[in-house]
This record gives sequence, structure tokens and C-alpha cells, in this order.
Amino acid sequence: MIGGGMDAFIGAVHRLALNMDGQVELVAGALSVNPEMALASGRQLFLEEDRIYTDYKTMLEKEAAMPADKRIDFVTIVTPNFVHFDPAMMALDKGFNVVIEKPITFSLEEAKRLKAKLEETGLSLLLCHTYNGYPMVKQARRMLQQGVLGKIRKVYVEYPQGWLSTFLEKTGQTQAAWRTDPKKSGKAGSMGDIGTHAFNLAEYVTGLKVTSLCSNVNIVVEGRMLDDDGAAFLKFDNGATGVLMATQIAAGEENNVKIRVYGEKGGLEWKHEDTNTLLVKWLDKPTEIYRAGTGYLDSFASHNCRTPAGHPEGFLEAFANLYRNFVLTVRAKINGETPKPEWLDFPGVEEGIRGMAFIENIIESGQSDTKWTPFTV
Amino acid sequence: MIGGGMDAFIGAVHRLALNMDGQVELVAGALSVNPEMALASGRQLFLEEDRIYTDYKTMLEKEAAMPADKRIDFVTIVTPNFVHFDPAMMALDKGFNVVIEKPITFSLEEAKRLKAKLEETGLSLLLCHTYNGYPMVKQARRMLQQGVLGKIRKVYVEYPQGWLSTFLEKTGQTQAAWRTDPKKSGKAGSMGDIGTHAFNLAEYVTGLKVTSLCSNVNIVVEGRMLDDDGAAFLKFDNGATGVLMATQIAAGEENNVKIRVYGEKGGLEWKHEDTNTLLVKWLDKPTEIYRAGTGYLDSFASHNCRTPAGHPEGFLEAFANLYRNFVLTVRAKINGETPKPEWLDFPGVEEGIRGMAFIENIIESGQSDTKWTPFTV
Amino acid sequence: MIGGGMDAFIGAVHRLALNMDGQVELVAGALSVNPEMALASGRQLFLEEDRIYTDYKTMLEKEAAMPADKRIDFVTIVTPNFVHFDPAMMALDKGFNVVIEKPITFSLEEAKRLKAKLEETGLSLLLCHTYNGYPMVKQARRMLQQGVLGKIRKVYVEYPQGWLSTFLEKTGQTQAAWRTDPKKSGKAGSMGDIGTHAFNLAEYVTGLKVTSLCSNVNIVVEGRMLDDDGAAFLKFDNGATGVLMATQIAAGEENNVKIRVYGEKGGLEWKHEDTNTLLVKWLDKPTEIYRAGTGYLDSFASHNCRTPAGHPEGFLEAFANLYRNFVLTVRAKINGETPKPEWLDFPGVEEGIRGMAFIENIIESGQSDTKWTPFTV
Amino acid sequence: MIGGGMDAFIGAVHRLALNMDGQVELVAGALSVNPEMALASGRQLFLEEDRIYTDYKTMLEKEAAMPADKRIDFVTIVTPNFVHFDPAMMALDKGFNVVIEKPITFSLEEAKRLKAKLEETGLSLLLCHTYNGYPMVKQARRMLQQGVLGKIRKVYVEYPQGWLSTFLEKTGQTQAAWRTDPKKSGKAGSMGDIGTHAFNLAEYVTGLKVTSLCSNVNIVVEGRMLDDDGAAFLKFDNGATGVLMATQIAAGEENNVKIRVYGEKGGLEWKHEDTNTLLVKWLDKPTEIYRAGTGYLDSFASHNCRTPAGHPEGFLEAFANLYRNFVLTVRAKINGETPKPEWLDFPGVEEGIRGMAFIENIIESGQSDTKWTPFTV
Repeated sequence: MIGGGMDAFIGAVHRLALNMDGQVELVAGALSVNPEMALASGRQLFLEEDRIYTDYKTMLEKEAAMPADKRIDFVTIVTPNFVHFDPAMMALDKGFNVVIEKPITFSLEEAKRLKAKLEETGLSLLLCHTYNGYPMVKQARRMLQQGVLGKIRKVYVEYPQGWLSTFLEKTGQTQAAWRTDPKKSGKAGSMGDIGTHAFNLAEYVTGLKVTSLCSNVNIVVEGRMLDDDGAAFLKFDNGATGVLMATQIAAGEENNVKIRVYGEKGGLEWKHEDTNTLLVKWLDKPTEIYRAGTGYLDSFASHNCRTPAGHPEGFLEAFANLYRNFVLTVRAKINGETPKPEWLDFPGVEEGIRGMAFIENIIESGQSDTKWTPFTV
Repeated sequence: MIGGGMDAFIGAVHRLALNMDGQVELVAGALSVNPEMALASGRQLFLEEDRIYTDYKTMLEKEAAMPADKRIDFVTIVTPNFVHFDPAMMALDKGFNVVIEKPITFSLEEAKRLKAKLEETGLSLLLCHTYNGYPMVKQARRMLQQGVLGKIRKVYVEYPQGWLSTFLEKTGQTQAAWRTDPKKSGKAGSMGDIGTHAFNLAEYVTGLKVTSLCSNVNIVVEGRMLDDDGAAFLKFDNGATGVLMATQIAAGEENNVKIRVYGEKGGLEWKHEDTNTLLVKWLDKPTEIYRAGTGYLDSFASHNCRTPAGHPEGFLEAFANLYRNFVLTVRAKINGETPKPEWLDFPGVEEGIRGMAFIENIIESGQSDTKWTPFTV
Repeated sequence: MIGGGMDAFIGAVHRLALNMDGQVELVAGALSVNPEMALASGRQLFLEEDRIYTDYKTMLEKEAAMPADKRIDFVTIVTPNFVHFDPAMMALDKGFNVVIEKPITFSLEEAKRLKAKLEETGLSLLLCHTYNGYPMVKQARRMLQQGVLGKIRKVYVEYPQGWLSTFLEKTGQTQAAWRTDPKKSGKAGSMGDIGTHAFNLAEYVTGLKVTSLCSNVNIVVEGRMLDDDGAAFLKFDNGATGVLMATQIAAGEENNVKIRVYGEKGGLEWKHEDTNTLLVKWLDKPTEIYRAGTGYLDSFASHNCRTPAGHPEGFLEAFANLYRNFVLTVRAKINGETPKPEWLDFPGVEEGIRGMAFIENIIESGQSDTKWTPFTV
Repeated sequence: MIGGGMDAFIGAVHRLALNMDGQVELVAGALSVNPEMALASGRQLFLEEDRIYTDYKTMLEKEAAMPADKRIDFVTIVTPNFVHFDPAMMALDKGFNVVIEKPITFSLEEAKRLKAKLEETGLSLLLCHTYNGYPMVKQARRMLQQGVLGKIRKVYVEYPQGWLSTFLEKTGQTQAAWRTDPKKSGKAGSMGDIGTHAFNLAEYVTGLKVTSLCSNVNIVVEGRMLDDDGAAFLKFDNGATGVLMATQIAAGEENNVKIRVYGEKGGLEWKHEDTNTLLVKWLDKPTEIYRAGTGYLDSFASHNCRTPAGHPEGFLEAFANLYRNFVLTVRAKINGETPKPEWLDFPGVEEGIRGMAFIENIIESGQSDTKWTPFTV
């Protein structure tokens, strides 16, 4: 693991997720740019002393030099956005598969180079769009793929948060500080942090691609350097339209991502607050409540449930699903086996490139007086 | 009552609403342009034979000629949009107060002339924006007026319906037929029918005025002549922004109008599906569930509740609230008394003009390549 | 109307309900035992002076002496429990149909005598078990009648209120005062006031009859004279069992009556808080959300909806449904027509007798050391 | 781990839970009474060959003989009820702490002997009442301890499941087979399987003890040997009363444990379906929605959250909370440190004894004609 020391947030989440299924063991880490923090964090995680590194380059070199049955199988990169690309490239060069927090890189350009490297090496990359990991999101995707609702016409996706309602970065809060700093976060603030999740969810669930957009991107809290609020109209490649809303100044909101998709025959609704439920609505019959863990789900959904219906699974399980599918795929490839379609269903570099393009395009549109901006990659 | 025969929808709703509180008696009607329908409808409603009219002009003339204690006090106009203006003008000229379905007229120009006539006559007009009549909507408005959430920053308002998901007007369904016909409905379809409700709700609850907008307005169902789907970014006069979504092709949706408003300190959420509840969200303490009929409500909310908490009131009660406040105001004016502020809280010609301007502006923006269209009245 | 003056609660509710459909006009009243209150209340309701009475006996006599086309068609009795029987008997003797608040009488014995009188006169009686009037309750009943869920096995019915959590009757609050006074309310407090509603709902929805029960009835608030809390195990005539819970000391609860019924193949759930929804649960497929106002409902449910899906109807509409069905039936009988089955679906004297028996039996069981008490009528 | 092979349910859940926090590693197992299954299961879990055992006695002996830094620290027993006591006693004798599925033993007598053994050895025991592990359950408990709602008056606890609605044990389904077999499950079926959870939750949340009960226990599905449905009235040691409902024949229900507690000033409501929410209701102000992961929670609740508000945690996290607190306590004791109060907050042998007594008492009451049965331990 690169990054994710004791003072970080998402690193701990990754560890909870990768531990869960007992398929992965964390054995090495360059957990902080601060050597003392790196050391203390490594010890707290029971790493062996000689595998606690203070910089990722040393780690990747030393691990690559170890025998195959001892060295790491993949590396997880949970640093701020501006330190994604270099360690990822180096890891791939050294032969390690890669798990990376989103957004995949600092710029679209970097994302494309990462793609080229992956094609060159044949290795795998997992991009942690957690919301893709929920069984009921997969159920939604599958039902739409199978045409259950007819042609898709309308998509509403929203991601309201409230935690940046105040000038939090001024207080020195670590998370707020780097996420609102253009040097560390990139061109976008909220659009990169959560807008990409909403965008990814829309494309993942519908199986459609955005072809143009029209955005309104705002800095609401005085003094902030990056956007903390925005919305976009979307046009999709099948002619459908959509509305995307993402904000971090919706005071009082937690983290309730929600998507609604309407086709000719009915609609689907999923929201993070009630992760184990998918509402399926019909023109002329009662709405159905599909539930995680039941017997009637699609195999892509069932494969990502661990417990029977009525035993709520949440964010960590969704996260663990990404890891599990990635690990099943990597292991199959190592063993020369063909991964099952259900295992291959995790977000990777393509989703990363789309996400970086989303950031570029939504910011460009936000600054434009012309209504529609073509979605260029 | 003008319009609202046995074959109409909204006329019956008006009657349910005006009957409820026992303050109003329907005594005369020109209920249909079809004389037989007019007669049959009048009889079914127990009108006296000589007050069942077959055209509104005759009705207004004959009623105006009756003694003051016998003639009608106000007239309700529930005809399609293109037959709003003429009877309203004539009624005012004859000295009758007016209740009118929304949108107020066929064009913005007509709405302005109606306003002038109202100022000239000193009479009252009720415009039936039903959602204004809900006690918890009034509670929301009052809390924002009182600054409980600090400065307003973001508004989300949505109105998803699914009933026009198919080419229903082709089947001869009466409601669908006139609402999708530009000759009867005006420039807009869904934006006039439900977009105006969403717009009105946003302005009513926040007390803000929209100053510019950027819209995406669509005809989704092939063959349809007017828009059946749309969305708009909004800018408000205090610098807040908003997103408005209204659609009639969200297959499987009923009529779940919803508004969320976020200020510096927290947010409010109200949805039609759960009309008796207002969620009040806070940055740093638990969300509160405000409920209709309780003892802690603002007087503007309490005044519009008929039963104690836990006795759900709905659409008809909200509608009846409009009528009750209108009637209390009209009666006070007749009696030379000063209406209470709570009574005066019903939508009128100003809201009608704003609504007509919304239709003009959103359609104009929808056809424009420029992002923002100033909101002109 | 007998009782229901300006200082009462339920009388106003009755008026809202009977006004709503424009089928009934309140023309006479003995609205209070206090003559001044009776007079003032009558005037407020626009009654003609000579039909404002100060006692019910005079009213019934004078009205009976009027010509058939002028006199009242039925009388509504909304006095405290101990003044139900006498006016009801006299009204029937005078040839008037009767509407009566529940519980029907002060004792089971009186209820039986009322039944005999109804049989003798051939007149109709409506007992206001409002929860029977909800369309989705009727939908539930019909689905169970049709055997959709197989044999019924388990019934949970609950009625939690919180308004008697304090010693409210001590403060002089009118409602609390008579409802907790054995001389005015009868043998039971909460079991009569709301327990009977829960019991009635269980029998109405399932179509089953309780054959024995085991209760725990409590006085929780110190100083109170009648029960304010209770629960009962139920045995039904088909072998099913149930649990009934009714309390008025559930601090913080409003009025959320709820029933769940389970058969061999699935279950039904309806709660007052979400009156327009019926959940239908299945062993092996998604739960379905049945909604009021939709096209797929049973005719007994549809007949009791006034507006399309998505326009919430509530307590007053349910109440008005009782009145409407009663009036449709009475009018049909007057006109020598056969009432439709949907019209006849309102609670009457049989339900009244069952309710009085419930009070007697649950109180007896509450005082018994033996577990089961046969349900005797 | 004893039991929990590839063909079992709860063993896998234990492993997910103990893995999660990276504090525990599964190193040895006697995973099945079937040697082949034991072996295959151990290999699948990456156990070293020499620590895959085919019977628990061998395991406990061999592990006890290992050096302290290598041998297991505690043993998890996830066998059917009738194989809890012997391995637990032996483990304690060998110096191992014990984790045990509920119900703790086959009989109350065994539970008492286990308690004596724990006192003798000074070791720790975790009993897996998972619902205790939820942060919002702990929040509820703490608020009641602190008297926020005043004296507790009423408790409703329910546990409806539907999975035994058919004669499932006849089909050979493993779970159903042993849970409905008196030889493996004990005196009770559903009352032991889920009734104990409901009972435990009631005592845990309120901090009260049941002193007598009156039950109705049923076998609903024909041919079944143990109860599959039941309910009980409860009396608590402070004078409060309660109703407990637990059933496995509520067709269409999943696993929605729910508890409501009412005090003099308000009420609390928690349900498993919405695990991250606690409703706090008040007599005279809006209901509050307390949420997991927020900043305003009690330390006993916060300590059991892993992610910020809006990141749903579920059943596995609650289970992992039990393990984490147990492990923190065991490690502190090993290190000679004083465990924090928050760590000690996990269910143990006392809860096990209460649970076994519940089974004995509810079954006895179910068979009795007398209403109340004193709760004897």
C-alpha cells in the first residue's frame, strides 16, 4: 500500500475492504511521505519491519526483487490525486497489478498513458468507484442491459454532500485541505471528488456513454479555490438525456448518492441511503422492491452478496466487492484460467479515462457561454 | 363554475375542495361547451334548473343581474388554458372575484392585462397552485423567511410524472389531448402543466426570485407536439443557484413533487409523497421530522391543518386551503374587515405572471444555444 | 347532528367528511347540551334559526313532523359514549337512519338492542370505523378474500398513540377528561377508544372472527381511572393467531395504526402513516407497492379513491368514504334500488356489537389469571 | 474455529467479521465433523496443513501444547447448539478464551456451569448477539441509561422472519433441518433461534430485566417439531411492560428486528432494515433522526463506527464490532492493561444465561394455562 497512514481516511477503508474476505494479506507499505508516520503506521498494522518502507520507489524496487511467492501481488495507491500516476506507472513497470483510488490521475493525459502501459504489460488495474460494487447497482445495470425497461430515455443522478458547507480547509482539516487545493486535487474540486462518482454511476448503470454536456459549476463558500457545487445536463449516445447534480455544500446531507433511470416501460431507482434495495417501477403495475441477498437476483448481483436477505451490507462490503472481483481476476490470470464474467465486472482504466474526461469537460462547459460542450476524450 | 363538467378532471377536484369546509355552496354553472353535457352535469350537482347555463357569458350576465344576496360571490374557471382569459376578464368586469386554474392564461400578455383589471376593480383572484396550500410547505417557507437556515445557497426542485410515457393523446384520452395541443395549451406542454408548479414552489418556499435560467427542453415521445420533459438551471436574486426538473415521461412515477433547499446552516426537504412531513437537516445535529398537526408549527402552517398530528391530510385538503384562505379574504373584504396575514397567503395574479414568464423564458432558453437566458417578465 | 358543537373535536371531522362530496347538506342540529353553545354553533354552521335545537329529543320530534322532502334523511350522533344509545333508538323510532361514532354504545347490551331495532325498522346505521374507509385497506381485504396469500396464519395489528402520556385529564383538557372517565366512556379507556379500531381493522381486513383472547391491560399514568395501555393475543376462527397492541402512552407517537397479515404465500402491510400504500410481500419474489388511485386496484378500492395516483388522500377522505357509501345505500333504498356491493361496504351494527364485545372480553381477560378468555358476544 | 465448514452458514459470517479489522488471523480449525469437509474447508481458508484438524479435541490439545506466541488466543465455536458446551468447557480448561454462537448452550444448566468455569479461569467469553453490536443500538442504550426519556414504561420488540413458512426441513435444507430438530436445537425452535435475540435486545437496550412473562407459542407449519412462531407479554423489574413477537412464518419478511421503547418524555425506535438510524421521538417537539458516523453520538456508539455518516455499515460490521471489542479486551487482559468501558461492552455468559432462561420460561409459559409465569433463572 502506498499512502494510507494513520492520519489518512481512505487507506483505512481500503484495508477494511481487502481484509474482509480473507483473500488478501497486507504485507508491505509505504504508508506516508512522513517517515515517522510511515513507520508507526506500518507497525500498527503488524507489518514486518523490513517491509515498512518510507518511500514508494524503494518499496516497489525491493518488492520486485523478492521471490515470486513472497513479493506482493498488487499495490494499492491511496495518495492524493497528484501522486497517483507516478507510482502506478512504476508499479506496472515492475510487474505489479494496481489498485488506485479515483480519480485515476491528475490529468486526462496521464490516464491515457496509464492505459497504454496496461495494454503493454497485460496487467490489471482496479479503480475504486465503490458505488459500482453494490449488488443492487449491478442488478439495475443488468436489468437495463437485458432491456427490461425498453429504450432508456431519462437519467437523473445526484450526489449531495454537506461536509464542505463551511470554509473547512481554513481550519486545517486534512481531507478538506488537499481536496480543495488545485495543486493536489487537479482542475476540479467537488466535480472530481464526487461528480466523477455520479458520472461513473450513470454510465455504469445505463451502459450508455455521455456525448455532450452543459454544466453549471460553482464555488459557493467564499475563499474556496475549487468548485464545491455543480450540475450538468447530459446527452447520451442513444439519444437519452440526463441531469447530474453533485454538491458538497448541501448542509445537512451526508452521502446519499442516488440514481433514477427511466425507459419506455418503467423506471429504476437506487439510493445509497438504502443500498440493499432497488425500486423497479412500472407504467401499469405495482412498483417492485428488489432486495439484496434474495433468490431472484441476477448472477452479477448475487455474486456480490455475502449474506442472506435482511442482513444489511454496506459501503465496506461494496468496496470489498471491488477487491474481491479484482483479486479473483488477477489470481485467475496468474493461474492461466479464464476469469468469469462476474469477476471481470470491476472498474478499471477505461472508467478512469472517462472520469478524467468528465472533469475536463464539465469544467470547460462551466466556463463556457455556449450551452452544449461535446464530450471529448 | 365555468367548465368542469362530468367529463373533466380538475372541475371535480375543485368541487371537493370548495365543499370541504362548508363555507361555499356551488349554486350556478356553465359546466361545458356542450349544452347537453352542461345540463346533465348541472343536474348531477343538484343545481337549480335556472342556474344551469350553457355558456359562461349568459351566466355572468344573469348572475350579475341578480340581487346581491342571491348571486354568486366568485366564479371558478376550470376550462383548458386557452379559455381562461376571456371569462376571467368578463367576471371581473361584472364584479365577481375569480378562481382560476393554472397556468393563469394562454400568454404572458394576457396575464398582465388581468393584473391591470384586478387593480382597477379591487377584486381578488386565486390561482390554484395547490402545492402552496400544504401546511408543511408553508412551514418551510416560514422557517426560511425567519432565517433559520441562514442565507439560501441551493435549491433542487423536481416534478416527475410518468403518465405521458406513451403517445396517449393518440388514443383520444381527453386530458392528454388538450394538454399536448399547442392551440389549447400554449407554448409549452409539460413545462406549463407541471414545470410551472415546480417553479412556483421554488419561489414560494424560498421567497427568492429567479433572475436567469438555462434549460434543456425535450419532446421524448415520438409524434408529440409539445415538450414532455425538461430541466433548468436557475439563478436566484440572492446569488443562490438551483436545478429544476420536470418530466411527464418518467415511466412509473406518479406525482411526487419534491423540493430541497440548502442554506448555510442546514437544509429543508419536502416531498408530495409524504405531504405531512418536513425534514429539517442540520450541519451538526440530528435531522428533525416536522409533522403537520403538531403544536410546534408556525401559525401559517397550523392555520392550514384541520386535524391533529397523525391524521394524514392530502391533496384535497391543500386545495381546500387555497379556497378557504381566498374565501376568508373575500368575505373579510366584503365585510370591510382586514384579512389576517394567514388568510392572504394564497397564490394570485403575481404568481400567475411569474408562471407565464417562466413558460416563455424556459421555452426560449430551450431553443437557444447561449447558456443563460435572463428571466424577463 | 347531535353533539359536535364548537368545543368538540369529532363533530367537526364529521362535517368535513360529509361536506366533501356535495351529496349531503347539514340542515339541523342539537349541537350541545349547553343551549348557548348549541345556538352559537348552529349559527356558525349557517343553520336556519328554526332548525337549531337545544336538545335532541325536540329535534327528532320536530324534524319527524316536517314534510318528507324537507326533513332530515339521517342523523349523526357524535356525543360521548354514554349518550349514544338513547338518541339512536329515538331516531330509529322516528324513521331516521343513523350515523354514530364508535364505540357504538355504552354497553354490549345496548348494542344488541340497537341491532334489534334496526332489524325491526329496516333502517341503516353507519358506525364510524374510519380505518375501514381507506382504499388500500379495502384492497387488502379483497386480496385476502380472494385467497391471494393462501390461508391466513398470523395477524399483527397495532395502534400506538402518545397523547395520554401525561395526566392530561387533570388539566381539564375536554377530550382527555371524558375519555378517561368510566361514567362517560364505559368499562374501557384506551381499549375502547383505539383498541376497538385495531380489533375492527383486524377482523375487517382478514374477514376472520376472533374466538378467544388473552390480554394484558394496564393503567400506566398514575391517577388515571381507566386503562391507557394494553395488548392481546388473539385466536381466530380459522386457527390463525394474532397480536393486538394499543396504547396511548407511547410518548412521541401520533396515530400510526398498522396491520400486517401473513398467509401461506406472502404478507400484507398497511400503516396509517402511509395510507395510500399497501405492501404485498411474497415468499420468493419482490415485494410489491400497491398504490391508491392506480388502474390495477380492485373495484372496492377504486370506488373509494377520488383522485389519480400520486395525489395523497387522507383521514378526511376515508371518513368521507364511509359517509358516501352510507348515503349511496340510503338513497338507493329510498329510491327502491339495489345498492351496489361497493356501496354496502361500510361498518354498521354488527361491527358495533363485535366492538362492544371486544371491550367486555379484553377487560375481563385483563383481570383474569387464566390465560385464554373465550370471545363471547 | 470449531465448526463452520464450507457447507455451513454462520461460520463464514464469523470469518468475515473477524477478518475485517485486521486484528485477528484464523490459523487453526476443526471445521467439520466430516473429515473430508474439514480438510477441504481448511485448505480453502489457507490454513497450514498441520493446523487443519478433524476433531476439536485434538485441536485444543495440540494448540495448547504449542508455544504461547504461536498457539491460538481464542477459539470460535460455530457448531449446532448441542455441540456448544463440551468444546467451550474444554477450551476454557486449556486456557483459551471462547467465542460462541447463541444460544450459548443446549440447556440453562450447561450455561450456569460455563459461567462457573469462566469465573474459575478468569478467561473471557463472547456470545454473538450481533444486534448488540450496532452503533445505533448502543446509542439507544446509552440514552436510556442517561435517563433522557425518563422512566421506561413500554417496550415493543419484534423479530419477523418468513424463511420457515414452508416445510423446508423436509427438503433437506441444512439450516432448516437442525434448527427444527429438538435433538440439535433444544427445547425451542424459533424462540431459541430468534426469540432470544429479541429478548436480549430488549434487556440490552433498556438495561431492565424481565421478571415474568406470558407467552403464546405455536407450531404453524404442519409436521414441524418445534415452535416456529410466538409472542410474549413481558413485565420488567421497574414496572414497565412489553410485548415480544418473534416468528419464522411471516411469509415475505426477511430479518427486520425492531425495537421501540417509550419513557415518560419520549420514545426510541430502531429497526434492522435501517440499521444506521435511530429515531428519537418527543412528546412536544419534532422527532430526531440520529445517524451512525455523526459527530454527536455517545462514545459507546462512535467507538463502533468505522466510516463517516452516510457510508452504510451493516450486519458484518456489527458482528465485527463484537469481535473487535472482545479482542481489545482479551489483548488488554493479556497485556495487563485495563480495558476501556467501550471495549467491555460485548455480550457474554450473563447474556447467555438470561437467553437460556428465556427459552425455558417462554416454552413453559406457552404450555401453561395460567397467564403469568415468573421469569426464573
